[in-house]
Amino acid sequence: MEIREYVAGQREDFLADLMEWLRIPSVSGDPAHAGDVRRSAEWLAAHLRGIGFPHVEIMETGGLPAVFADWPVADAPKVLVYGHHDVQPGEPAEEWETSPFEPVVRGDRLLGRGTSDDKGQIFMHTLGLRANLEARGADAPPVHLKFLFEGEEESGSMHFPALLEANREKFACDLVVISDTTMWGADTPSMCTGMRGLVECEIAFFGPDTDLHSGSFGGAVPNPLHAMARLVAELHDDGERVRLDGFYDDVIELSDEERALFAKLPFDEAAWLRTAGNSGAAHGEAGFTTLERVWARPTAEVNGLWGGHTGPGGKTIIPRSAHAKISFRLVAGQDPDKVAASIERFVADRVPAGIRANVVFPSGRVRACRSAIDDPGVLAARRAMERAFGTEVLFTKEGGSGPEADLADILGAPLVFLAVGLNEDRIHAPNEKVEIPLLLKGAEAVAYLWDELAMPRG
Amino acid sequence: MEIREYVAGQREDFLADLMEWLRIPSVSGDPAHAGDVRRSAEWLAAHLRGIGFPHVEIMETGGLPAVFADWPVADAPKVLVYGHHDVQPGEPAEEWETSPFEPVVRGDRLLGRGTSDDKGQIFMHTLGLRANLEARGADAPPVHLKFLFEGEEESGSMHFPALLEANREKFACDLVVISDTTMWGADTPSMCTGMRGLVECEIAFFGPDTDLHSGSFGGAVPNPLHAMARLVAELHDDGERVRLDGFYDDVIELSDEERALFAKLPFDEAAWLRTAGNSGAAHGEAGFTTLERVWARPTAEVNGLWGGHTGPGGKTIIPRSAHAKISFRLVAGQDPDKVAASIERFVADRVPAGIRANVVFPSGRVRACRSAIDDPGVLAARRAMERAFGTEVLFTKEGGSGPEADLADILGAPLVFLAVGLNEDRIHAPNEKVEIPLLLKGAEAVAYLWDELAMPRG
Repeated sequence: MEIREYVAGQREDFLADLMEWLRIPSVSGDPAHAGDVRRSAEWLAAHLRGIGFPHVEIMETGGLPAVFADWPVADAPKVLVYGHHDVQPGEPAEEWETSPFEPVVRGDRLLGRGTSDDKGQIFMHTLGLRANLEARGADAPPVHLKFLFEGEEESGSMHFPALLEANREKFACDLVVISDTTMWGADTPSMCTGMRGLVECEIAFFGPDTDLHSGSFGGAVPNPLHAMARLVAELHDDGERVRLDGFYDDVIELSDEERALFAKLPFDEAAWLRTAGNSGAAHGEAGFTTLERVWARPTAEVNGLWGGHTGPGGKTIIPRSAHAKISFRLVAGQDPDKVAASIERFVADRVPAGIRANVVFPSGRVRACRSAIDDPGVLAARRAMERAFGTEVLFTKEGGSGPEADLADILGAPLVFLAVGLNEDRIHAPNEKVEIPLLLKGAEAVAYLWDELAMPRG
Repeated sequence: MEIREYVAGQREDFLADLMEWLRIPSVSGDPAHAGDVRRSAEWLAAHLRGIGFPHVEIMETGGLPAVFADWPVADAPKVLVYGHHDVQPGEPAEEWETSPFEPVVRGDRLLGRGTSDDKGQIFMHTLGLRANLEARGADAPPVHLKFLFEGEEESGSMHFPALLEANREKFACDLVVISDTTMWGADTPSMCTGMRGLVECEIAFFGPDTDLHSGSFGGAVPNPLHAMARLVAELHDDGERVRLDGFYDDVIELSDEERALFAKLPFDEAAWLRTAGNSGAAHGEAGFTTLERVWARPTAEVNGLWGGHTGPGGKTIIPRSAHAKISFRLVAGQDPDKVAASIERFVADRVPAGIRANVVFPSGRVRACRSAIDDPGVLAARRAMERAFGTEVLFTKEGGSGPEADLADILGAPLVFLAVGLNEDRIHAPNEKVEIPLLLKGAEAVAYLWDELAMPRG
């Protein structure tokens, strides 16, 4: 039986099983739902055993459990599939048209929490695997397949790096397939090829012990807010490049081919600006398009700035301190630790006499991740997607930062993003949904992918 | 009888009368004390009648009453003395060693609210006038004397300009004597020769409708905080001069003589920095000393700056708006309206595409005031002070801003600051006090001043 035919025939059973799983409210961010996250893991483990995985285990972490399934195949590439079985909360319930944990099919849409992010996309893998087995009439996949589905992604993946570190051998693989992102659009299938990294810092400048009267002292002692404004103003040059020393030294630049493929995407800048809070203009690093800026260029953004009198009315003071929260999005090649050291030097070079500075890095540093578009795994996935969708598959990136970089860094394997969610799926929002035909196309693509990866290419 | 001898002999009576008046808690900032401010005005009016003023009236305003006393003398210079009979609150009572409205004499000190600011200094005038009459054996002063003591200075002088405007004729004078400031020190008598003016503004920059996720949008839309930081950073040049167009055009520069007299003051910069909240360094406009900077140079100080996430932890956003409160201290010659217009142009020139700006001027604009050190009235007062103190009298200025500029502007007369308060008198703070010997020296100086002013000079 052909893969496509098999997948089409499974639609009703597939949806029935998925909806059963979606009814378990595996909200990792709410301690009251810890038992549900465990039930979800147990349900998924049982389902994977049913498909035929010879080894399935629930893996304990310092927090909520992950599910690991292993189907060893000798002399075949090892592929690890990553996703997460926990979900966002269902609140605010009154903004949902349906109940978040009572999934509903409406025509070609499946509505409910987790339908797109990420249970639906995990389930695409289980259907894809079954299709591959059925089409090949085989009792094992053509690759050594490992499924790793964590249970804390929606609450920060706090224990995930430690899980990876502790199980490098068990999770060892030649390729990581990630199914937790989106495509450009239902008519424009695409693959993500990277996410940005992140360094966050908080800078404080301290001047006088107390706020000073600007009549008595104004113009004669350093004002911490002036110094902070100068520091922030100097963060970017006139071309909006970040002026941290060495910031761009290790950046892996986009290739001409990547830029050309980005340019093929049907990008409507006016519409994009509307989604950007009706921003009045595009603005950023000279020489790059908007998509290149948000996907593939490192940035410095001041997220918060404060000092002095911020309440109603006037107060003629020289404030005692000034504060800024600044985050740096990084791209592939940049080392967050080197960036952090450069931030410290940048600040130290700009502390005027009479001001004391303090720089802290309150949260974790995230490395960017990147899939080369000529990586064999990426090429195989692109062929599989093109077979499923019957059209050219383009490339995107994600401007945000996630735990995916840990997979690449700790497991030392390239990442392939294969996902069929859409930006309009309302993940993390009321009325999350998934397009059922896209899930089925995704299952098809997965089935092709295992074959593509198993085929040696010269 | 000599003036000095007379004043010395009046010490006990002078203190007894003043203490009676000080017991009336004429706190203008507290509506509960409105009746006390009126009682204070009535007490003062009665006292002035007792000295011999032929015309004394309580002048109603839109708020609390002022007291006006007029002693016409034909063919003599008209002199108006300004002060205020209202006081700061007595709170926090627990920080007072004595009760704020139960004045106490301790050796050469009189403790209590209003002893220095400003009832004590008003009373110095009443004693000075009596000494002058007594010494001359006359039944009228040698100048046409007008006393104008307002009742709302400590709550913003809200109705004072209107009172002046409505009574230009009645208050018309050749000279205004102001007794509401301080001297450099008990051993360094000095006269204030100016106060700075003030323009306050609040600037807002608006970007997207809502805070944006910096992963999705960072680096590609304008960040209002970046734009605000650039604006603030550009407020001053490398020499800390304010970069508003035309800002210095009309500034009346200090003369070499004024600078030389400032330099004679025994100024201890290290001690001054300690009073400046232990500021670590002096800092300001190149080419000027600290005293010149705070007294005689215009400034721009950011009093508050805020935008985006200012709470604990990180939040990787592009904020929707940025805000700054900025105050400009002005010096003589500068027109606050011209400065305000220049601020508006400065902001308009620095609004990036995609950002909307708003500038408001929430509070009143205050002109600076200045007494020329070669003004005949200033010279007369300096001679009077030198006769009283027996030493050279130096010149200072005040960096703050007050209603005095209205007196000069509306009445069109030069200002002479004759005061004997000290910076360490703890005005506006618990345990306010005055040095009784200085009040008596001040009374002497006043007595000499009326004679000095009456004497024609060539």
